[in-house]
Amino acid sequence: MLIGEKQMKLNINQLNLIIRKIFLKHGLNKLHAKICANLIIKAELSNAPSHGLARLKMYCERLEKKLINPKPKIKIRKISQSISHVDANNSIGFIAGDIGIKTAIKSAQKTGFGLVGIKNSGHYGLSSFYAEQAVKKKLMVWCFTNAPPAIAPYGSRKALFGTNPICFGTPTGNKVPFILDMSTSMINRGKIRRAAKLGLKIPKGVALDKFGRPTTDPKKAIEGVQLPIAGFKGSGLAWMIDIISGVLTGANHGGKVKDPFDDFSGPQNIGHLFIVIKPSIFIGNNYLDQIKKNIRIIKKLPKIKKGNQILYPGEKKYLNFSKNLKKSIVIPKNILEDMKKLNA
Amino acid sequence: MLIGEKQMKLNINQLNLIIRKIFLKHGLNKLHAKICANLIIKAELSNAPSHGLARLKMYCERLEKKLINPKPKIKIRKISQSISHVDANNSIGFIAGDIGIKTAIKSAQKTGFGLVGIKNSGHYGLSSFYAEQAVKKKLMVWCFTNAPPAIAPYGSRKALFGTNPICFGTPTGNKVPFILDMSTSMINRGKIRRAAKLGLKIPKGVALDKFGRPTTDPKKAIEGVQLPIAGFKGSGLAWMIDIISGVLTGANHGGKVKDPFDDFSGPQNIGHLFIVIKPSIFIGNNYLDQIKKNIRIIKKLPKIKKGNQILYPGEKKYLNFSKNLKKSIVIPKNILEDMKKLNA
Repeated sequence: MLIGEKQMKLNINQLNLIIRKIFLKHGLNKLHAKICANLIIKAELSNAPSHGLARLKMYCERLEKKLINPKPKIKIRKISQSISHVDANNSIGFIAGDIGIKTAIKSAQKTGFGLVGIKNSGHYGLSSFYAEQAVKKKLMVWCFTNAPPAIAPYGSRKALFGTNPICFGTPTGNKVPFILDMSTSMINRGKIRRAAKLGLKIPKGVALDKFGRPTTDPKKAIEGVQLPIAGFKGSGLAWMIDIISGVLTGANHGGKVKDPFDDFSGPQNIGHLFIVIKPSIFIGNNYLDQIKKNIRIIKKLPKIKKGNQILYPGEKKYLNFSKNLKKSIVIPKNILEDMKKLNA
Repeated sequence: MLIGEKQMKLNINQLNLIIRKIFLKHGLNKLHAKICANLIIKAELSNAPSHGLARLKMYCERLEKKLINPKPKIKIRKISQSISHVDANNSIGFIAGDIGIKTAIKSAQKTGFGLVGIKNSGHYGLSSFYAEQAVKKKLMVWCFTNAPPAIAPYGSRKALFGTNPICFGTPTGNKVPFILDMSTSMINRGKIRRAAKLGLKIPKGVALDKFGRPTTDPKKAIEGVQLPIAGFKGSGLAWMIDIISGVLTGANHGGKVKDPFDDFSGPQNIGHLFIVIKPSIFIGNNYLDQIKKNIRIIKKLPKIKKGNQILYPGEKKYLNFSKNLKKSIVIPKNILEDMKKLNA
């Protein structure tokens, strides 16, 4: 048995098998268990552990409580050759996202454009998982999702918007895709928690205390709210994403998306919106020459620090991922213990 | 004659007639002159004078030099019922934008979705002009445009991206539309110029000097570059907009869009991308009930400052516009003189 020691390095294949087994035990079918295991490992390899193994216990708890449906009957309603509406039937978010992006990709391949709205979904990991699928098929893509309350709308002192990410991807004509995957919050909650643990301050302007006053004390920030990027602008972007992911698709919105860790009163009902475009629609294959030229020009600009490189969005993540692929994954003690229990 | 004094208040109708006359003198047809005059006045009434009369002389100079084509043969290539590619033939940007959004609106009304890419265009004023047209027809919309170099890509000390705005609009179920229209730069150049004139400092983190060092001295900032919002994130957004407006459509990109005030070596060849969606595609008319509910919930949140309101994007601009409609427009001396010459 590989799990049971205090801390452990596991190679990717071993870990993958264990996670699959855990999901199978929690009622998922083989295909769904495989997709979920792959994406959880992908988060770890992408240096985004907050979207990886750290969520395994949560997913399983929600599966046990039937707040995530292990055997969802996902309905894809085709509105036109380009547009589909997916009711994910409270599936685990990974599966809803995977079916959604595959549907949008097929539409874009046929008609130049695909639009898919998804309701009754859950936390789906990183938006870049789905963007990458489209970019691998040489398509341009946006992935949007809403999320449980984390940041305060501009002018308010109460969290309502999720960290609502914007994710955009395009082929680049080389093997490293351009994938911008950015939350609309100044800082993520994990960093605030870490600062609190280590007794560090957090930067100015990233959080408010519970009275709505700016704070650099991470403990007060945890009781208070996180702030959106760029004030009114970031608040507007997070609001836009709540509208297009939640209101438009028929999912929860306006702060009603449930926190998957804390709120077991019902399914999350997160919404996602995927837009996929064939980048050759206007200028044909010239697109790849032009995007290569665009990136080449920008990379050659004079740098602030000599010797530094200008990286495009997604480049660093790709490089990290490639390096990490060759390593084992280090699993912290608490997560090892979770896995042991979940696999029992 | 109304123009010729030192400073002047003109009512909107008088001013509109003068601007139309100026554009007619510079070769535009009646319809185009009317659209341009309306949009220049709309910018003034929207408290965005930098996109209004302050650009009249520039537009006319470029018309005289044939860098803007006064009698463009705009070609609309229909790729599908939903997708069109517009070659604006170096028209004034207002006309390209107007034709582009009307094309996208028609497609969305027919198929639920419209996508229009525009090349060979110029500065088109505020993105919200075009978003408003779609929202008035009860549609959801994104308008993107690239622009001449103003902000430095993250890690560089040279301006390359324009202030590349993101503009998103949706009907709200009431008369005031939700229209987010935000540049991806921390501060606009006008504010830096004003600070330099008045001997004021500019905030930290909005600009670099020509050596790539942070500066609060507006004069050094003018020689240097403006910074994108939120560091790497804003830089990524500005890059995305350069790609979807410029690379995708066949327009200039990668810093090649010409500055309309300074660079008379050729047409600007700006690109725009419009995406229009029928908001009822997934959940029918329930959309309006849900967006009303969304806005109602957010407006009721506890405020940072008691007595303050939480406004949604576009609300303040709408209120200002409505107030300004009842007033005359004050025209500064230098612009009055320009108008006198242009109308001679």
